[in-house]
Amino acid sequence: MTTYRIAVIGGTGPQGKALGYRFARHGHTVVIGSRAAEKAVPVAAEVSERLAGVAGAGEVSGAANADACTDADVVLLAVPYDGHDELVATLPLAGKVVVSCVNPLAFDKAGPYGRVIDGGEGSAAESAQRIAPEAHVVGAFHHVSAVTLWGEDDYLPDEDVLVCGDTAEAKQVVMELASCVTGRDGIDAGRLRLARQLEPLTAVLISINKKYKTHSGVRISGV
Amino acid sequence: MTTYRIAVIGGTGPQGKALGYRFARHGHTVVIGSRAAEKAVPVAAEVSERLAGVAGAGEVSGAANADACTDADVVLLAVPYDGHDELVATLPLAGKVVVSCVNPLAFDKAGPYGRVIDGGEGSAAESAQRIAPEAHVVGAFHHVSAVTLWGEDDYLPDEDVLVCGDTAEAKQVVMELASCVTGRDGIDAGRLRLARQLEPLTAVLISINKKYKTHSGVRISGV
Repeated sequence: MTTYRIAVIGGTGPQGKALGYRFARHGHTVVIGSRAAEKAVPVAAEVSERLAGVAGAGEVSGAANADACTDADVVLLAVPYDGHDELVATLPLAGKVVVSCVNPLAFDKAGPYGRVIDGGEGSAAESAQRIAPEAHVVGAFHHVSAVTLWGEDDYLPDEDVLVCGDTAEAKQVVMELASCVTGRDGIDAGRLRLARQLEPLTAVLISINKKYKTHSGVRISGV
Repeated sequence: MTTYRIAVIGGTGPQGKALGYRFARHGHTVVIGSRAAEKAVPVAAEVSERLAGVAGAGEVSGAANADACTDADVVLLAVPYDGHDELVATLPLAGKVVVSCVNPLAFDKAGPYGRVIDGGEGSAAESAQRIAPEAHVVGAFHHVSAVTLWGEDDYLPDEDVLVCGDTAEAKQVVMELASCVTGRDGIDAGRLRLARQLEPLTAVLISINKKYKTHSGVRISGV
């Protein structure tokens, strides 16, 4: 497999840290990004420590978000939706494969639900593409739980990674990266606009998690 | 298991016919509904014929949509989204468990996508609940393919039925009915409003079907 230099924007959050860990575990070089380098460096050290003794693990370092993108082949956006657009606008993303696992969710006393983006005709991934038109934005990794990702198993064989995007080459890169999580290629879930469906599906999984006291994920049958 | 009298509104379409077949296969009495009884009767006969020799199968008959609801314990709405609201308004649904498997989708040259209902803050299931406030509306069976349902296997063990609703008792009835499809209870996916997420997810599955030449379905891992 090709190994990449992957910047994880928002890499100090649970989802970003755990995905960075998975990518490094399977040989990719990972730069944990945060608003300030001094917040990223200790998290990078924590991930490195977690990988001590894992043969072939990639190097993990920390940097400020925009600096993490420099020289990265792939940039993972793992940030909260609040402030997402403003942050994306500060990043040098032109020409890069940009993976969004951002889930625009809200919560009230009836539980989690999907936020309505652009009147229902948008998604975080599409916003990133609009803000960074020269990036190749792909949506993926929305449904894998940070807790499960941070575990010790080499792979999470019961989960699928659904990958949507409008650039075939970028989508292919991300489908291959998915094998760091599941042990097999991600599933081509179609056009980028289907992120409108993938992102808020996480509200359903969180609802299931609460009811069944679990960390649920999605598997596609018949593929 | 309790056996029910189940009306399938739009039962001459592929999804309704195939779900009616599954329910009858596992002992429930099924009334196939259509706009005109004379369209429903031959489809009911086709389903009955398909069940010849299946021990314990329920009776299948045909009727006009509103007549099919009379005496039904459960009413399955399996109609296209176009005309849905007008049709629901003609049905006697008060006090009944009403299951919506309606998928408001649209298609253009880039493929399938979810239609925006009520500015992104609605779904077909929520519309049905608003139109029939005394019904107990539950969303379920959005993701099982008609082709797979119409097959010969007793159960589809690789699929899950996701069930959302605001009435615990009605949701429980539908979770049990899901066992006619998968051989085990459906998954409690939370509040009815999460139908906003479940319904258009079908656009993703259709996109996957086209890419992989399959009939995909959803399985929830970790439950």
